[in-house]
Amino acid sequence: MKKLLAAIFLFGTASAYAQTSPHEKLVQYVKPIIGTQRMGHTYPGATVPFGMVQLSPETDTASYELNGKYNPDVYKYCAGYQYDDKTIVGFSHTHFSGTGHSDLGDFLIMPTVGALKLNPGTADKPGSGYRSAFSHANEVSEANYYKVKLDESNILAEMTTSARVGFHQYTFPKTEQAHIVLDLMAGIYNYPDKTVWTYVKILNDSTLVGYRQTNGWARTRTLYFAMAFNKKFDHYGFKKYEKRQVYGGFWGKFNQTKDFPEIAGKQIRAWFDFKTQENEKIKIKFALSPVSMDGALANMQAEVPGWDFEKVKADGQALWETALEKITVGGSVDRKQDFYTAMYHTMINPTVYMDVDGQYKGIDQNIHKADGFTNYTTFSLWDTYRALHPLFNIIEPQRNADMVKSMLAHYDQSPEHMLPVWSNSGNENWCMSGYHSVSVLADAVVKGNAPFDANKALDAAVTTARHRSYEGIGEYIDKGFIPDEKTGVSVSNTLEYAYDDWAIAQMAKKLNRMDIYNEFIKRSENYKNVYDPSVGFMRPKLANGSFRAKFDPLSTINEGFIEGNSWNYTLFAPQDPEGLIKLMGGDKRFVRYLDSLFTMELPDKYFAETEDITRDGIIGNYVHGNEPSHHVAYLYNWTDKPWKTQERIRMILNRMYKPTPDGLGGNDDTGQMSAWYIFSTLGFYPVAPASNDYAIGSPAINNAVIQVGGGKTFTITVKNQSEKNVYIQKMLLNGQPLNGLTITHQQIMAGGELVFLMSSKHK
Amino acid sequence: MKKLLAAIFLFGTASAYAQTSPHEKLVQYVKPIIGTQRMGHTYPGATVPFGMVQLSPETDTASYELNGKYNPDVYKYCAGYQYDDKTIVGFSHTHFSGTGHSDLGDFLIMPTVGALKLNPGTADKPGSGYRSAFSHANEVSEANYYKVKLDESNILAEMTTSARVGFHQYTFPKTEQAHIVLDLMAGIYNYPDKTVWTYVKILNDSTLVGYRQTNGWARTRTLYFAMAFNKKFDHYGFKKYEKRQVYGGFWGKFNQTKDFPEIAGKQIRAWFDFKTQENEKIKIKFALSPVSMDGALANMQAEVPGWDFEKVKADGQALWETALEKITVGGSVDRKQDFYTAMYHTMINPTVYMDVDGQYKGIDQNIHKADGFTNYTTFSLWDTYRALHPLFNIIEPQRNADMVKSMLAHYDQSPEHMLPVWSNSGNENWCMSGYHSVSVLADAVVKGNAPFDANKALDAAVTTARHRSYEGIGEYIDKGFIPDEKTGVSVSNTLEYAYDDWAIAQMAKKLNRMDIYNEFIKRSENYKNVYDPSVGFMRPKLANGSFRAKFDPLSTINEGFIEGNSWNYTLFAPQDPEGLIKLMGGDKRFVRYLDSLFTMELPDKYFAETEDITRDGIIGNYVHGNEPSHHVAYLYNWTDKPWKTQERIRMILNRMYKPTPDGLGGNDDTGQMSAWYIFSTLGFYPVAPASNDYAIGSPAINNAVIQVGGGKTFTITVKNQSEKNVYIQKMLLNGQPLNGLTITHQQIMAGGELVFLMSSKHK
Repeated sequence: MKKLLAAIFLFGTASAYAQTSPHEKLVQYVKPIIGTQRMGHTYPGATVPFGMVQLSPETDTASYELNGKYNPDVYKYCAGYQYDDKTIVGFSHTHFSGTGHSDLGDFLIMPTVGALKLNPGTADKPGSGYRSAFSHANEVSEANYYKVKLDESNILAEMTTSARVGFHQYTFPKTEQAHIVLDLMAGIYNYPDKTVWTYVKILNDSTLVGYRQTNGWARTRTLYFAMAFNKKFDHYGFKKYEKRQVYGGFWGKFNQTKDFPEIAGKQIRAWFDFKTQENEKIKIKFALSPVSMDGALANMQAEVPGWDFEKVKADGQALWETALEKITVGGSVDRKQDFYTAMYHTMINPTVYMDVDGQYKGIDQNIHKADGFTNYTTFSLWDTYRALHPLFNIIEPQRNADMVKSMLAHYDQSPEHMLPVWSNSGNENWCMSGYHSVSVLADAVVKGNAPFDANKALDAAVTTARHRSYEGIGEYIDKGFIPDEKTGVSVSNTLEYAYDDWAIAQMAKKLNRMDIYNEFIKRSENYKNVYDPSVGFMRPKLANGSFRAKFDPLSTINEGFIEGNSWNYTLFAPQDPEGLIKLMGGDKRFVRYLDSLFTMELPDKYFAETEDITRDGIIGNYVHGNEPSHHVAYLYNWTDKPWKTQERIRMILNRMYKPTPDGLGGNDDTGQMSAWYIFSTLGFYPVAPASNDYAIGSPAINNAVIQVGGGKTFTITVKNQSEKNVYIQKMLLNGQPLNGLTITHQQIMAGGELVFLMSSKHK
Repeated sequence: MKKLLAAIFLFGTASAYAQTSPHEKLVQYVKPIIGTQRMGHTYPGATVPFGMVQLSPETDTASYELNGKYNPDVYKYCAGYQYDDKTIVGFSHTHFSGTGHSDLGDFLIMPTVGALKLNPGTADKPGSGYRSAFSHANEVSEANYYKVKLDESNILAEMTTSARVGFHQYTFPKTEQAHIVLDLMAGIYNYPDKTVWTYVKILNDSTLVGYRQTNGWARTRTLYFAMAFNKKFDHYGFKKYEKRQVYGGFWGKFNQTKDFPEIAGKQIRAWFDFKTQENEKIKIKFALSPVSMDGALANMQAEVPGWDFEKVKADGQALWETALEKITVGGSVDRKQDFYTAMYHTMINPTVYMDVDGQYKGIDQNIHKADGFTNYTTFSLWDTYRALHPLFNIIEPQRNADMVKSMLAHYDQSPEHMLPVWSNSGNENWCMSGYHSVSVLADAVVKGNAPFDANKALDAAVTTARHRSYEGIGEYIDKGFIPDEKTGVSVSNTLEYAYDDWAIAQMAKKLNRMDIYNEFIKRSENYKNVYDPSVGFMRPKLANGSFRAKFDPLSTINEGFIEGNSWNYTLFAPQDPEGLIKLMGGDKRFVRYLDSLFTMELPDKYFAETEDITRDGIIGNYVHGNEPSHHVAYLYNWTDKPWKTQERIRMILNRMYKPTPDGLGGNDDTGQMSAWYIFSTLGFYPVAPASNDYAIGSPAINNAVIQVGGGKTFTITVKNQSEKNVYIQKMLLNGQPLNGLTITHQQIMAGGELVFLMSSKHK
């Protein structure tokens, strides 16, 4: 190793190193505001890595319905915040990062002064409710810290978090009428009756507990809380907004209009009154638990026993610093902001989903205890199996193993006996297609990051993949494809199942379960069954084996695909690029196909069909803002024009990622878009997770050092890299030429150095 | 002791003993059907003593609302069953016994044949739904056993229980279309949106679990279940009845119309299909848990691991036999049916409220574990403090102590820091007035049945009684009475608080807490403050100290009393009859008052105001069907005409209790009416619980043996007793004359014999 390090210096990387001195804090480069404008669906608030609490401002809490009809605006507010908005409704404790569907937004808190207003009011009239105007000039958004001045009240709002506790600090003016509003009706993707039940109980003069049960994207989600103030409230109260009051036993016995210590119902807001001196800080600790109110109290006590806001902020930022330092890169401030914000965005979801004592509510709605692992939820697996989990296998292997354990626990508890598809707080959203958790399991097993029962994992994968009643699997098994009659996404499902089956086969091979290997390696070739050579596209096939007549390979609507058209999905056989190229007529035709994809002009009418992305999210007909083509630019590597991969990757990096609020061309999708960015910036990418191979792209930094565990580092040195010098002339791995266009997981994890020699001309 | 027993035989009780030979099963005399017609509000189904499961037929499940208005019929169905009805809707697992308000009726099961019908249908057209006609000729109702033939389907339905498991046995005809319907929308006192949430999950081919959360009389009650069949179902399914379906993730992925293993929502019915041979029995075990589905499964496994219906029935009946044998009485079959059915009705509520592992959900909505005691719920304390808990202190002292411990746990968990008023499955119904749990605590402490922290009990009582914001307590403390302006029940509350305060004082004295004694003995005289000597009645008083002008001592509406008029409530100072008599002008006037009460003719318009009782529940203006006057007939004992107590008691016993479906003149009120019966039949009554003294009445049996613990017995021998010989000539306690009109708790619990000599003429 010493010899190797010497070699690095001989290659002249010292100057690059100067840019990432060990004393430089990487957390400074995290700009949570990136992606908050338009389609990124990220949020600017505070969280620690993989934290259960994501404490962030809502600029609106749009209802799914408006006047009885679908409200198209609700989509904008998947993360609760849109950069262009002028008002803040309040600060809530749970958010998805970068999703295209949503939920959460639990427990919205807003400080106000003056007459008590319990309604949020409207954005055009912020004074009409507790909502306040704000300005980005008075806003600071950092990793685990958010600050904003509320114009209406002149309150300075600050927030930070631990894993399970949101810590608010509100600096008030002098007033006899200071209020904290706790809106238990607010929520993201809110339905009129999304809140099924709410309970609040005052424990003492400064502490309360409660819970809220919602029927949203998560069908049955109950989140418990404990809320503590650093100051006794003078008075408090609740207001119920539902029309019906079942029975009235309480009402005759007590005056419940004020200072009555409990309430339960469907639509509730709470308020707390204070008197404040000028610049007096009212601090609030707000702990969550998926298990119980006692659990929330215990979480608060364990994580934030005191009232030192700066310490909690610093502790959380230190966690981020440690997480970010897994990869140090050189480069411009802009590039570092892109890179470390991408790193940041890869480490928000999945989220820790258990109390400090390990208890959590399972998919079976029973309380379980995570035995020897951290339990996670928020698995957006259709997105994240591609690059996010492979990234974790390099820089967060233990977390990834714990995520696998969480998936296996989910499997054990699943009424359908299936691995998760889209796991959401002890619920299954069944969002998107495939059974891609098998890819995450297989990737971990194949890469040797499997401190779990790998054979059990294989059995879970096989059982899931054989679940005949799940979205066409029965037909897929019987016929080798899903008939168009069965489902509107028959082609993309067939393709995705075939990839997942290949992943299962790789895991089986590693575990020497050859019967399973044989079954699934055969299934993995099913992608060929939906290819129509007469048109050169994957195409819906009828049960009788003939292709469907109606077919438009540019359309994403009713063409047999999900979040992609046939043009893009036809390239979806990441497990077998060689076979695909052969199927599609060989190298020359394949390169022409790829070139067309990137360069054709997509007519407006098709753009309108494309979900979840801005116009900027599309290059030609290549859709980067959705995931199915994330591997596509790397496919040139299997042709005689790998330099085109290098060119395209750099183009995508430049066009799709910017260190600005509108810097993400599509939903970040719980970190998958950001994970693509990190891999591609480093110069390699997992085209087929569950393989040990990464495809070489074109590194966009001058140097990087990856902490690969056990104190070892893998250094990437890129010589002559520039915006024009995007082509690889030569690669040296530990001083030896690296031929071919792949590097293996083992080569990286062994530590060492990979040197790229770049040029403005391709080979 | 041997000497004593010899004495009994000398007195010639051998013939009486023959009627209750030790080999005679007392359980045969239990007729659960008593009280099921009209106002008794008992139910005929199966339960074990104090069981969590009360498995009983519903003849209707009336909704609280009908066409948007209050449905007066709902009141009839407090226990789900009315004897006059001709159809059965199904069999549900939870019922209150004898209440005048209701809830429960959880998890209604109905077996059917033929085309599947998921709606109950109407009583006038039983074939229009799953409801079936039945006949009392085909009905058997015993302790822990209920059987009925369902005319529509020709199914023989049988049921029995353990504490936490309902065991159904349905004998089918031969059919290809046998169904079990599980209606998760049905319930007693049902509101349109009473069911807040429901979840069901199929575990395997014959087992399911789930829960239902309701917002009824219990504001937030979640009951979990596990349901197992002795036979695999061929198919199963769920139907949702709510209009809105939030999100649809599930629907695209699976065909959920049949055999899909889970469902959640607000309005759900489930069905299970079988094929049956002639006379094939389909058995169902249905376990409950207040904690979790796992808890329900564990309860089932622990209590009923097998499928032996007869064994479960026999085990439960053996529990009843043991419970009934606490008191053996001689007498006619009718009298024994009255007596043992009364005994039975005193041991249904309160109910065990915890899993076999001791876990339960507290009033704070957290899960707790009962540490060294059995946790109970269903405390209807305004009723039961009078005679039911005193009875338990004699025949079920350990249970009563555990009930106190349950109340103290409730106090610890109460958001209001109060002892229970009407405890309902981890909820507080706040039904009726007073804080009578303090009487239960004091009665146990004073009588020496206090294997709990008695000083803590006193503190809980005091804290409860000082809760200024609870229904006028603040004003009561300040002024010595509750002003009429404060609440519509100012007079009865003042009277009840005064009694409760006396109970607290007695407990304090026993514990040598004289500061508390002095405070509360003073408060106990507050009853005098609402007596208006100018009219000779307790009367609403205004805040300024003057009596309210408008006053009608016969009316129960808006006169300052609850469930009673001033005529009855004026006698409510059980803690101080002497003082009351003095207040009311002395013996002569008092006797005249009592006589008038029993003999006056109550005009019809006042009868219509009287809640919860039939016309038969009233004797003159004396209302036995409600509780406030339960001590009144004993008050002659404090005058020079105690023989009138003896006369009145026998009259009440004869007129208010019959061994027939309509045999109860008013709601049994979770056993208080029955406890009055038992005490009065035995010849004594606890006029003022928290005193050691029982007032002597007129025993209505020839002999009784009470098991008083430690192997000791207290024998009551009644000589010359008959319908006419109701007057006591002489009493001998252990051979010595018992002078006076009281017997103490210690005298009874020491064991021994009390001999009454009766006559047709009073002394």
